[in-house]
Amino acid sequence: MKVLGLDHVAIAVKNLDEAVEKLKKVLGVEPHIEEVPEEKVKIAMFDLGNVRIEVLQGTAPDSAVTKFVEKRGEGIHHIAVRVDNIEKATEELKSLGFELVYPEPKVVAGGSRKINFVHPKSVHGVLLELVERV
Amino acid sequence: MKVLGLDHVAIAVKNLDEAVEKLKKVLGVEPHIEEVPEEKVKIAMFDLGNVRIEVLQGTAPDSAVTKFVEKRGEGIHHIAVRVDNIEKATEELKSLGFELVYPEPKVVAGGSRKINFVHPKSVHGVLLELVERV
Repeated sequence: MKVLGLDHVAIAVKNLDEAVEKLKKVLGVEPHIEEVPEEKVKIAMFDLGNVRIEVLQGTAPDSAVTKFVEKRGEGIHHIAVRVDNIEKATEELKSLGFELVYPEPKVVAGGSRKINFVHPKSVHGVLLELVERV
Repeated sequence: MKVLGLDHVAIAVKNLDEAVEKLKKVLGVEPHIEEVPEEKVKIAMFDLGNVRIEVLQGTAPDSAVTKFVEKRGEGIHHIAVRVDNIEKATEELKSLGFELVYPEPKVVAGGSRKINFVHPKSVHGVLLELVERV
């Protein structure tokens, strides 16, 4: 397993439109907006050149993002690193004692990405996504 | 003001040595360790190629990082974006109604960086550092 860089930082918010208006002023770029029904989120992606900032709003009461905002308030939700081989990363980290959210990597975004998460308990309170772009 | 990219993500922890051992396994790089007495922190910097991950431990009870960990637990503390002109960024964001932590940018790291922070109240719970590398 090799980490290829930081892929994105994700921010959980209550109201995506409000957050987008504010962040456009700070970041100086127009976001790309997407809805991901299988994850129950709407996403605004701000491309900063080297890394993306993804702003997430839950679209259902049982969305992980909605629950996070209710419990902890708005703020940074997770960071994601790009890896070269997510199957290997999952196995290696499990064997080193890290708690992974999925036993096997999950294929998302129409097959263009494979992801997994290292549980915050294992990484000093940080929800760490692993992404392989296929 | 122009945002040039994401500079770093900062994680606040209780015990830097423990966090470094863990993150070395996940990120696959050796960090550069530094103590910054004027900020009352020890920092481990992991260079991921496109962005740095900075792991912070407070070195005094009144360090902002120590207080953050006591109140919110370990986790992501802030993100920093690089800007071309921090004086301009400070003025522009103030005039747009954003709350800045310092009225004027602060010179740190022996004059090599000028920084400011946008208050989390102004950016949906995100503590956003602005950095100009001089």
